[in-house]
Amino acid sequence: MFPGSEIYGGLANSWDYGPLGVELKNNIKAAWWKKFVLQRDDMVGLDAALIMNPKVWENSGHLENFSDPLVECKKCHHRFREDQLQEKKCPDCGGELLPAKQFNLMLKTFLGPVEDENAVVYLRPETAQAIFVDFKNVLQTSRKKLPFGIAQIGKAFRNEITPGNFIFRTREFEQMEIEYFVKPEDWQKAFEMWRQEMWSWMTDILGLKKENIFENDIAPGELAHYSKKTIDFEYKYPFGQKELYGMAYRTDFDLKRHYSEPPYEDADTKEKIYPHVIEPSLGVDRSFLAVLLDAYSEDGDRIILKLKPGLAPYKVAVSCIKKNDEKLVGKAKEIYQNLKKDFPSDFDNRGNIGKFYYSQDEIGTPYCVTVDFQTLEDNTVTIRHRDTASQERVQIEDLKNNISLR
Amino acid sequence: MFPGSEIYGGLANSWDYGPLGVELKNNIKAAWWKKFVLQRDDMVGLDAALIMNPKVWENSGHLENFSDPLVECKKCHHRFREDQLQEKKCPDCGGELLPAKQFNLMLKTFLGPVEDENAVVYLRPETAQAIFVDFKNVLQTSRKKLPFGIAQIGKAFRNEITPGNFIFRTREFEQMEIEYFVKPEDWQKAFEMWRQEMWSWMTDILGLKKENIFENDIAPGELAHYSKKTIDFEYKYPFGQKELYGMAYRTDFDLKRHYSEPPYEDADTKEKIYPHVIEPSLGVDRSFLAVLLDAYSEDGDRIILKLKPGLAPYKVAVSCIKKNDEKLVGKAKEIYQNLKKDFPSDFDNRGNIGKFYYSQDEIGTPYCVTVDFQTLEDNTVTIRHRDTASQERVQIEDLKNNISLR
Repeated sequence: MFPGSEIYGGLANSWDYGPLGVELKNNIKAAWWKKFVLQRDDMVGLDAALIMNPKVWENSGHLENFSDPLVECKKCHHRFREDQLQEKKCPDCGGELLPAKQFNLMLKTFLGPVEDENAVVYLRPETAQAIFVDFKNVLQTSRKKLPFGIAQIGKAFRNEITPGNFIFRTREFEQMEIEYFVKPEDWQKAFEMWRQEMWSWMTDILGLKKENIFENDIAPGELAHYSKKTIDFEYKYPFGQKELYGMAYRTDFDLKRHYSEPPYEDADTKEKIYPHVIEPSLGVDRSFLAVLLDAYSEDGDRIILKLKPGLAPYKVAVSCIKKNDEKLVGKAKEIYQNLKKDFPSDFDNRGNIGKFYYSQDEIGTPYCVTVDFQTLEDNTVTIRHRDTASQERVQIEDLKNNISLR
Repeated sequence: MFPGSEIYGGLANSWDYGPLGVELKNNIKAAWWKKFVLQRDDMVGLDAALIMNPKVWENSGHLENFSDPLVECKKCHHRFREDQLQEKKCPDCGGELLPAKQFNLMLKTFLGPVEDENAVVYLRPETAQAIFVDFKNVLQTSRKKLPFGIAQIGKAFRNEITPGNFIFRTREFEQMEIEYFVKPEDWQKAFEMWRQEMWSWMTDILGLKKENIFENDIAPGELAHYSKKTIDFEYKYPFGQKELYGMAYRTDFDLKRHYSEPPYEDADTKEKIYPHVIEPSLGVDRSFLAVLLDAYSEDGDRIILKLKPGLAPYKVAVSCIKKNDEKLVGKAKEIYQNLKKDFPSDFDNRGNIGKFYYSQDEIGTPYCVTVDFQTLEDNTVTIRHRDTASQERVQIEDLKNNISLR
C-alpha cells in the first residue's frame, strides 16, 4: 500500500492499494460475494449509485443525526472530536476550547451546472440505505420470499474529524453490507444464524485466529437509535482492541422511514408487513488490515505471510536453479505459463532459490515450484509449502492437483 | 437496472444495478482483470483512492482545461452545452442565449472540519491520473521493466451538463483503464498491439458482433492536447453510432506534468527517461450497455439474451417437470446444490418447463438442466442449450463436463 497522492505530500490519511494489495483486496471481496451471494439461495446482490437523491438522507435520519461533536481551540483554532479528548484543554497548544458543535459527517457536492442549495447532494456515508431504497425493486424482480437478504459492496465516505491508524479509519473506505429481511418474530433466529456466519467468515475464509477476535454485546443504553441489539466484533490490533465488524438488529426502522406503505406482502396470508432487518456490516479495508496483521509471522529472519491460499495474490510461483541455463529457464517458463491459465502465478528468474522462497513467503504465496536438472530428465519438479517449508517431488502433470486453494 | 433513488423520484440519470445486473457487471470487470492483469506478464493492478490531492488536477491540466462550454437562456434560465445545440435559440422556450462560459466538469467536495477554499478536493474525473501519480511507487515495488502497464478499475465522476441515453452518459460511472509505458521509439508497435487486444476483448470476451463496431481514427486537428494519436471504437447503439471506448497515445505528457525528474532508469544504459504511454480506456457501464444490446435477440415470441457464457449471471439453471413431486424436486435440488459449488446457478421450482426455458433464455443462462421421471431410473437429465434450443440426455455425473464457459 502507498500513501495516496504521495508525490504531492499525500492527502489526509488516504491510501492506495498497490499491485499485490489490490489482488488481496479483490480476493477478499470476491470471497465475500461467493460465500454470501453466489452460494446462498436466500441472498441477491445490488450495486447502486453512490450519489443518491438527498431525500434519502433526510428520511434515513443522516442529515439530522449523523454527526460528531466538534470542538475548536480558541487560541490555535485546531479542531477535535470532543468525545476523543482526555481534557478540557487543547491537546496541541493547551488553549481553551469553545463549546462543542454538531458536525455532520456526510461529504457534500453539487450536481448539475448550478452550484446552489438545490444542487447539493451527498456522497453516501454507508451502502446500507441504497438497499432499503431499492428494496421494492429488488423484491419485484427477484421474487424472493422472507427470509432473504440483499448484499452490496462499494465505496462510502465519512468526513471523520480524526481519521487514523493506517487504513483503520479513513474518510474514503469500502463496505460489504448485508441487509437480511425477516418476519418480525424471526429476528432472533436470523441474528444467531448471522452471528455464526460472521465467525465462519472471519475464521474459515479470512483465516483470522479465534483468540484475536472478541464479541462485544453493546449495552442497551449505548445502542444506536435504530437498533434493538448490536454486536461488535472486535479485533486485537497492535493499537488496541477495536471494532472490526458490526452486526445490528435494525428492526423495521429504515423501511418505515422510506416506505409509507408496508412494502412486503406475505404470499400465504396476504398480510402487508414491514420486514425486520439484521445487518452484518463489514469494512473491506479493515478486513484487509486484520488479514495482514493476523497472517504476519516471523521464523528467525524469515518473514512469512500466512494468508489463506484463497486470498493470496499469487497461488503459486515458479523458478529454476540457474538463471542463464536456457533449457532450465525454458522449462520453468513453460510450467509457469501453464499454471497461469488456472491460477494467478508469479515467475522468478533470478536463479537464487533461497531468495525465491524468502520473497514468496513474504508476500504469502502458498506454493513454490522449482525446476532443476532432474526435471529435464524425469519431468518432476520440487513443490514447496509456504507454512511448513516442506518439499515434495511431483510429476509436472500432477502439479495442479497438488495446489489446493482451501 | 433500476433508476437510482427511484422511490424519491430518481436523481439526474443515475442508475442502480439489480441482482442480475450486478452479476453481469462483476463478470465484465473480472473478465477484463483476468485478461489484462492476471494472464499477462507485463501488467500489474492498482486501486487508488478516489479523492486525491487537488494538486494532481492542477498539474494534470484538469482544473484549467476539463470543461464544457455552457450557455444559459436569458428567458427561462435553462442551461445547455453550446456544442450540442443546433440553433442559437433556447431549445426549451426559444429565448435568446447568453454568451458561453467554460464550466469545469469536476465534482468538488470539502474534506475535513472546515468548509473553506483550503478544504476543496475533487472527485476524480478519470482513474488514469492515479496511475501516473503512483507510477514510481509501482515501479519500485514491482520492479517491472519497459514495456509494462498498470491497470485500474474504479468509479469516476463528471458533472455532465447533459447526461443521457440510459447508462451511455452518466455523472457517476465506472472505468477500466490501462496506462501502458514504453520506450519513446516503441509507441507504434505497442499501439498496434493494444488495438488488436481491444478487438480481442470486444469480440472474444464481450462477444460483440464485429459489424457493430467501428474504428474512428481521430483527425490530427481534433486530437486532445495530450495526444498524438487516438482511435475511438464506436458502437452502433439504437440512438446512433457513438463512442464505446477510446485509445490514445498520450506521449510523455502526463509523467512530465507530475515528475520534475525522469522517473524511469533504463537497466542497461542507466539512462533516465520519461516513458511514453498508450492508454486503452474503457467504461464498465458502456461495456454493459453494448453487451446487453448486442446479446438481445428475438425468435418468434422468445427473447434470448445471447450472452457469452463467461458473462452470464447464471451459468446453469435446474428444474423438474412436476413441482409437487417430492422425489423429482429433491433430485433437482441435489443437482442444483452440487452445480452451485462450481458455477453460479439458479433453481426454478414452478414445474413448467416451457416457462423455465423462456425465463432463463431472457436472462441469458446458457444451460438448462431438467429432471424428469427417467432421471429417477437411470440418473440421466436433459441439458438444453440456450442459443440452439437443442437438448441432449446426459449422465448426472457428466453434467459439469458438459458446461463450457467459453
